[in-house]
Amino acid sequence: MDTPTERQDLSYSHEELMEWPRDELSNLNPVRLAATSSLAVAQFLERLEIDERRELLRQLSTERAADILAEMDEEDAADVLEEMRPHRAARILDDFEPDDAADVVAELEPENREQLLAHMEQDSRESVEELLSYDPDSAGGLMTTEVDTALDRMTVEEATSRIREFANKHEDLHYVYVVNEQRQLRGIVSLRKLIQSGPQQLISTIMRSDIQGVCTPEMDKEEVSLLMAEHNLPDIAVVDAQNTLLGVITHDDVLDVIRDEATEDIQKLAGAGGDEDIHDDILFSIRQRQPWLAVNLGTAFIAAMVVKIFEADIGALPILAAIMPIIAGVGGNSGQQSLAITIRSIALGLVKEGDAKGILFRQAVIGLINGLLIGLLAAVMVAFFGGPLKLSIIVLSAMIINLAMGCITGTLIPLVLLKLKQDPAQVSSILLTFVTDTGGFFIFLTLGSIFLL
Amino acid sequence: MDTPTERQDLSYSHEELMEWPRDELSNLNPVRLAATSSLAVAQFLERLEIDERRELLRQLSTERAADILAEMDEEDAADVLEEMRPHRAARILDDFEPDDAADVVAELEPENREQLLAHMEQDSRESVEELLSYDPDSAGGLMTTEVDTALDRMTVEEATSRIREFANKHEDLHYVYVVNEQRQLRGIVSLRKLIQSGPQQLISTIMRSDIQGVCTPEMDKEEVSLLMAEHNLPDIAVVDAQNTLLGVITHDDVLDVIRDEATEDIQKLAGAGGDEDIHDDILFSIRQRQPWLAVNLGTAFIAAMVVKIFEADIGALPILAAIMPIIAGVGGNSGQQSLAITIRSIALGLVKEGDAKGILFRQAVIGLINGLLIGLLAAVMVAFFGGPLKLSIIVLSAMIINLAMGCITGTLIPLVLLKLKQDPAQVSSILLTFVTDTGGFFIFLTLGSIFLL
Repeated sequence: MDTPTERQDLSYSHEELMEWPRDELSNLNPVRLAATSSLAVAQFLERLEIDERRELLRQLSTERAADILAEMDEEDAADVLEEMRPHRAARILDDFEPDDAADVVAELEPENREQLLAHMEQDSRESVEELLSYDPDSAGGLMTTEVDTALDRMTVEEATSRIREFANKHEDLHYVYVVNEQRQLRGIVSLRKLIQSGPQQLISTIMRSDIQGVCTPEMDKEEVSLLMAEHNLPDIAVVDAQNTLLGVITHDDVLDVIRDEATEDIQKLAGAGGDEDIHDDILFSIRQRQPWLAVNLGTAFIAAMVVKIFEADIGALPILAAIMPIIAGVGGNSGQQSLAITIRSIALGLVKEGDAKGILFRQAVIGLINGLLIGLLAAVMVAFFGGPLKLSIIVLSAMIINLAMGCITGTLIPLVLLKLKQDPAQVSSILLTFVTDTGGFFIFLTLGSIFLL
Repeated sequence: MDTPTERQDLSYSHEELMEWPRDELSNLNPVRLAATSSLAVAQFLERLEIDERRELLRQLSTERAADILAEMDEEDAADVLEEMRPHRAARILDDFEPDDAADVVAELEPENREQLLAHMEQDSRESVEELLSYDPDSAGGLMTTEVDTALDRMTVEEATSRIREFANKHEDLHYVYVVNEQRQLRGIVSLRKLIQSGPQQLISTIMRSDIQGVCTPEMDKEEVSLLMAEHNLPDIAVVDAQNTLLGVITHDDVLDVIRDEATEDIQKLAGAGGDEDIHDDILFSIRQRQPWLAVNLGTAFIAAMVVKIFEADIGALPILAAIMPIIAGVGGNSGQQSLAITIRSIALGLVKEGDAKGILFRQAVIGLINGLLIGLLAAVMVAFFGGPLKLSIIVLSAMIINLAMGCITGTLIPLVLLKLKQDPAQVSSILLTFVTDTGGFFIFLTLGSIFLL
C-alpha cells in the first residue's frame, strides 16, 4: 500500500470496464480485477449480456463471485445464478451472508429455488429457509443470523475464546450480543469494551443492559433505520416477543434502506417508479412511467372541462386564458413545497402522533401569507402590463385562495395517507396538481366571469 | 432489562414530553429522563424557549447534556451554549466528540467562540481548532481525530494494551488503524480480527493493507458517503497527500450526510429550501419559499405572454385555452420523471464520466415513445368529447414534441449542472417547468392557429 493515488491506479476504472471489448472479457487482468471493488464489477456485470456475464464470472473464485453478486440487484443476481450449473450456484450462495442469500433466493423461479436449495450446505439452507419466512421489507427480512453471542455468566476470557471459535463463520459486527441459557437478550458489549476489560471480569458486569434500540422481526425496515439513526447504532438486535435473539441488522443494510427510501420518495413524487434508474432498459422505463402519465392526462382533462365551462367568457375576454395558468402554476408550486417538506419530515421521523393539527395550521398560514405576497406582486405585474385594476384584484384574490389551498392539500394528503399506513409519495403529487390546477382555473375564471364581464 | 415492551415503558414518549407543563420542567423524573434517548430529548429541547431549555439542562450531568446537544442542529446547540455560563458550556464541549464540537463552535458568534475555546481543556481545544480549519462540507469537517491506532511493527498483545490505555478517550470505532512511525497509514485491523489472533502475531501480518476506501480531507462529504456505501465500511480513514492519518469518519456521520442530502434534493426539487423542516418557525418557512415562488411567478408570466400573442386566435376558438394546459401539464410531468431519475442516479453515483450521451439519447427516446402513446390517448379523448379530427392530430403532434422536449430538458439540465459542479436540484425544476409550459403553449397554439383557423 502506497499513497492513495497509486492505490487507486491498480483497480479498473468504470470507463475502462465499459469500453472493454465484449469479446475479450477473458483477457481482463486478474490482479487488477481483484483490486476493483465488488460494487464496480457488479455495476459492470449488470450492463452485460447473459453469456458475457458467465464468461466474466468464470474467471473468479466462488468467494469473489459471491461478493459481486451480493452487490447486484436481487433480481439480476437471481438471473445470473439461474444461468449457472446448480452446483456452482449453490456454492456461491453458501458464501453469501444468509440475509443476502435469502433475498436472492426469493427472486428465483420456484422450480429453480427448490433445486438450488437442495444443493446448498445444510447450515446455509436452514438459515435461508428461516429468513425466507419473513417479509423482505421487515426487520426479519433484513437481519443476519450469523451473530457472535456470549452468555451473561461467562468471563471475558470465555467470551473471547468463543468468538475465536466462531472464526470466519460469523459476520464482523460491532457488538457481541449477550444472552442467557434460553437465548434471551440480556445486553450488549462492544468488542472494544471486551478488549479493555480484564480476562476474569464477568460479561454481566461489563455489558450494557439498558439497550434502547431493539427491533421485532415484524418491524418495518424504515422504522428500523430511524431507530438505528436515533441511537447511532452500528448494528441492532432483532428479538421476538419472549426477548429471544433472532438475529442482527447491520449498518450497511440500513444504509441501503435509507438510500432506497430516498430514491423512492424523490422518484415517486415526480410520478416515476421507485425502482427505475438511469441505466434501465428503455421499455422498462416506458412501462414504469406510462400509468402515471395516463393518470396525469386524466386529471388534466378534468381541469380542461372546467375551463370549457367558461368557453364563452374566454371567447369574450381571451386575456383570462393567458393568466389562468399563472394562478394554477404558482399554486401548484406552493403546494409542492408543503408536500416535499411534509413527506421528508415524515421520512425522518419528525412527525409524531398528535402533531397533525399544528402542522396543518402552520402550513395554511404559510400558504395565505405567501399567497398575499406573491399575489400582490402578480397584481402589480398585471397592472404594469396594462391590465385593468379589477383584473389585478381578481388575480390577487385567486392567488391567495389557490396558494392556501395548495399548502393545505400538500400537507393534508401525506398526513392522511400516513394515518392510513399508505406510502405517501406516489399519489400525493398527482392529487395535489389536480387540486391546484382544477381549483385554480375554477376560482380565477369564476371571479373573472362575474366581475369582468 | 426485561421484554422490549417493559423496557420502552421507562423512557418518556414524545407525546408525554410535548404535553408536559412548561412551568414544571424541574419535576421530570430523572430516572425516566435518563432512559429517554438523547435525540428525543434534543427534539423536545428544540421546541422550548431559551429559559425552559436552561431549566431542563440544569438537571442533567455535563456528559448527558453533551450527548443531547450533539443531537441538536448545530445552530440550535450553539444558541443554547451561548446562553450558559462559559465555564459550564466549555465543560460540555469538552465532552463532545471533537468533530461535533467543531461543528457547534463554528456556529457561535465570533466573540463567544474565543471566550468558550479559552475555557476548554487544551487537548479538546487544539482538536477543535484544527478541525475548524476544514470546510464543514468536506471529509476534514466530518472526521474525528480520536482514533485508536497501532504501529505496524507491534504484536497483537502490544496493540491491545495500547487500546486499553486509550480507554474512553477515543471513539468506539470498528477498526484499529495501523500506521508506521511517521503516522502514515499502512492498513486496518478490525477489533474482531485482533481478538481472534494470537497475542504474539505481528499486526503487519494480520492487517488488511489493500484498503480501497480512503478519503482526502478536501473530499466532498457526499463523495465520502458514496465511498463508504460502495465498500460497506463502518468507518473510513482520512489521509493527507503523504498518506498521513488525519482522522476517521464514522458510520453515524455518514448516515446523517445521506439523510440530509436526500432531504435537500427532495425539497429543492419542489422549490423549497433544503434546510426547512415541518416544525420550523412560520416566518422562516415563508422567507425560504418566497424567492422560488417569485421566480416561478416570473416564468409563469413569460408563458402567459406567449399565450397573449395568440389572444385573437383564442378569442375565435376558446377550446384552445381549455386544451393548452393539458399539453403543458403532461409534458411537465414527463420531464419531472426524467429529472427525478437523473438527479437520483447522480446522487447514488450511477452516472459516470462518458455516460451523458447514452443517457440523453435513451431519455429522448422514452419521451418520444411516451409522447406518441399518451398523445394517441389524448387524441382519442378529444375526439370522444366531440373535437374535430384536425384538433386530435394537433394534440397528438404537440404532445409528442412537448414530452420529448420535457424528457430531454429534464435530463440535460442536471447533467450540465453536474459538469459545472453545481448543485443540480435547486434550479432544475424551475427551468424545466418554464420549458414545458412556455414551449407547450407555443407549440400547441401555433399548430392550432395555423391549421384550425
